[in-house]
Amino acid sequence: MTIYIEPLAKLVNELSKLPGIGARSAQRLAYHIIEQSDTDITALVEAIASAHDEICFCQVCQGLSDGPTCSICSDDSRDHGVICVVAGTRDIPAMERSGEFNGVYHVLHGVISPSDNVGPDDIRLRELLARLADDNVREVILATNPDITGEATAMYIARLIKPMGIKVTRIAHGIPVGAELEYTDEVTLARAMLGRREL
Amino acid sequence: MTIYIEPLAKLVNELSKLPGIGARSAQRLAYHIIEQSDTDITALVEAIASAHDEICFCQVCQGLSDGPTCSICSDDSRDHGVICVVAGTRDIPAMERSGEFNGVYHVLHGVISPSDNVGPDDIRLRELLARLADDNVREVILATNPDITGEATAMYIARLIKPMGIKVTRIAHGIPVGAELEYTDEVTLARAMLGRREL
Repeated sequence: MTIYIEPLAKLVNELSKLPGIGARSAQRLAYHIIEQSDTDITALVEAIASAHDEICFCQVCQGLSDGPTCSICSDDSRDHGVICVVAGTRDIPAMERSGEFNGVYHVLHGVISPSDNVGPDDIRLRELLARLADDNVREVILATNPDITGEATAMYIARLIKPMGIKVTRIAHGIPVGAELEYTDEVTLARAMLGRREL
Repeated sequence: MTIYIEPLAKLVNELSKLPGIGARSAQRLAYHIIEQSDTDITALVEAIASAHDEICFCQVCQGLSDGPTCSICSDDSRDHGVICVVAGTRDIPAMERSGEFNGVYHVLHGVISPSDNVGPDDIRLRELLARLADDNVREVILATNPDITGEATAMYIARLIKPMGIKVTRIAHGIPVGAELEYTDEVTLARAMLGRREL
């Protein structure tokens, strides 16, 4: 690609580092940015800078927050007796969209994965155990992904927590709503069969 | 979408205004930005700001430039006797990638389109005519898009320039290289037939 203007080339380079932005998209975005008004660009630049500077981790659930405690953890209308454990901060908005959960969260910031040299001490498991010791927690829902490391992490945590007398559950895996049986992969189908419930 | 952190919501909103970035991509980008190091974010923010601030239009060809005259117009090794007329600044890197052109450019910043109230005075046609009066221009290649307004603009400019005794050409339209005849649309095929050359 021949881009002969230094600031444009730099911008394309920075934009193409973003996830899901290839060389073509980066170029299109760069031209768009150049053509925008000063106000629009100031808004974009400030949004990036302030999101990056102001957002930290909630000291309770380790999720994203713009203060010491996030809005979910400081919400008294939510059930603090049920903790949903997720691998990453992005899983919280996904779960919130479902509207099915009114408890609180705990973000592990990763999963146990020996092949990547990630052990139990490398994820925020200690923080979870501290919450279980202090709080009046009745149930821990393990909502890590249904892949090998996600499953292994869920099993590991379950074995740690069960002796404490706390109910430990795992979210259900099965055929996505709206999907067709014919086109569902075999692993999901197997899970759906194993997880069948009596009607 | 439930995003409960103000700076994050603002960032997602700003990002989703960008072309080709939907709500999902904006959210993914926002999380990525939050997780980046200070250095990476500073580089991104500075690249956006400086590209927007430093890039202006070349006073000769009206293309993007980081100085009064762009690198193409100030390049003596290029043939300043051949001007390729394009509709937008983005057409220049596209043409440069082809490696087939060693002349200079002129960016119209639009095409004549009566239905959009864009007349000959609303595009940078006067600047093109000024260049033709001064320079030793031998050929003007009209490279506007092969759509109705692009064609009409090319015809309009051709009729203006021909009386000056300058050669006026139009880039060829036909079947894209690598495309299959079977799947080529009929308008392109018609163009390919009309533009056939003797071998």
